[in-house]
Amino acid sequence: MTSINIIGTGNVAWHIATALQNANGFSLQAVAGRSENSLKDFKLLAKDTGLLNTLSPAALTIIAVADDAINKVIKNIPYTTGLFVHTSGSAPMSVLSQFENHGVFYPLQSFSKEVSVDFKEIPICIESHDKKNVAILEGLGFALSEKVKEISSKEREQLHLAAVFVNNFTNHCFTIAQDLCDEKALSFDLLRPLLETTAIKALANRPDTIQTGPAKRNDTETLKSHIKQLSNPKQQEVYKTLSAAITSYYGKKL
Amino acid sequence: MTSINIIGTGNVAWHIATALQNANGFSLQAVAGRSENSLKDFKLLAKDTGLLNTLSPAALTIIAVADDAINKVIKNIPYTTGLFVHTSGSAPMSVLSQFENHGVFYPLQSFSKEVSVDFKEIPICIESHDKKNVAILEGLGFALSEKVKEISSKEREQLHLAAVFVNNFTNHCFTIAQDLCDEKALSFDLLRPLLETTAIKALANRPDTIQTGPAKRNDTETLKSHIKQLSNPKQQEVYKTLSAAITSYYGKKL
Repeated sequence: MTSINIIGTGNVAWHIATALQNANGFSLQAVAGRSENSLKDFKLLAKDTGLLNTLSPAALTIIAVADDAINKVIKNIPYTTGLFVHTSGSAPMSVLSQFENHGVFYPLQSFSKEVSVDFKEIPICIESHDKKNVAILEGLGFALSEKVKEISSKEREQLHLAAVFVNNFTNHCFTIAQDLCDEKALSFDLLRPLLETTAIKALANRPDTIQTGPAKRNDTETLKSHIKQLSNPKQQEVYKTLSAAITSYYGKKL
Repeated sequence: MTSINIIGTGNVAWHIATALQNANGFSLQAVAGRSENSLKDFKLLAKDTGLLNTLSPAALTIIAVADDAINKVIKNIPYTTGLFVHTSGSAPMSVLSQFENHGVFYPLQSFSKEVSVDFKEIPICIESHDKKNVAILEGLGFALSEKVKEISSKEREQLHLAAVFVNNFTNHCFTIAQDLCDEKALSFDLLRPLLETTAIKALANRPDTIQTGPAKRNDTETLKSHIKQLSNPKQQEVYKTLSAAITSYYGKKL
């Protein structure tokens, strides 16, 4: 049985702690957080919860805190034995180099406590210099998910950047669409079936093969009238930049 | 039984013709297209298929062609009786004003022949000056879908613009993400679970309440390093414009 400590009480910590309940061969020894209040939810999931400086050593310590908190946290861990990993998409593995055994365990997903996810479907990106440690992370990865892959820090950096386009930017496009509906007292529900189909198509196809719309067709009349229709300058900029990017992308391909 | 002619053989025509097979009280009399070849697929769906000038009058004529083809098509319809509608998101209703009875029947969805859709879930936006015609379109709408709404040309224009953000722009964001993966020989499948969750969350929430990421946090270090990481200037522009839009959007709200 591999004992695990989790440091952090946010969304990633929560989902890993939950998934660990059904992971054969791994036991969640303790969860450490900054306050009793943040630890409340974890009392049913871990044998122990407490402040960081009260932690006992574990075979594997998972640091699931915000990127800019990693440095502070690692200064305050009261032991150096075992394997230490972080769960960040963008922090390099080297931020943990003060520990002899260190690596990365990055679940590529956008977590929130309110939305339950099927952990089996989440790609887990693992990294370590040491083969023995890779094997431990692979073991944990496959105990939680069907998709585990060794990914270097450089590759993970690229995935994290791509994830910004897949999640952050698309969600802001949805937000602008919602605001445009609000403006004319139209329900955003009218657009949700289209939103769903957009995702379903991109799940089954290379997205560049299913692009449609006025920018792809370089339909300058519609583009002009859309820009005129937008009264908000920020929305206009997004419209212009994305349309220009699309027109140039497919123009080059013709 | 209301007889229907469809003019056009593209994706919208195909999906309406298919859905009409199960619509009580409506019968698909004929589908008109430019060539025998384009009409092939419709032979099992309509009583008759043929060139536009061979059409017999029907109670309802659905013009499902590209926006810039509507004007040409209506000059060549060999009758003026019955109700005429187009299926366009952006063309105003008035393009059909040469017909005494005219209106709009706009299914708000992105259709492609390869992807079957549940027509019952598709919002149908209808419009006509005449109450009797609205009733006919409502009847057809509810025979095909559970979501039928009277929408003015001005409102439809806004929905169509919002649809560009929901579908065209998000799909291009997916395309950039795919290209970033290709660049480092990473599989886009690693990002598909995130893509799916992004949509699931926006289907269940107001998108502005679930925004995350470096631009929302105004995490300038990550933003700078991401921009440096992008070697393609068009990708850089999209990144900068969307990040600035997000930062300003949530900055104002704080």
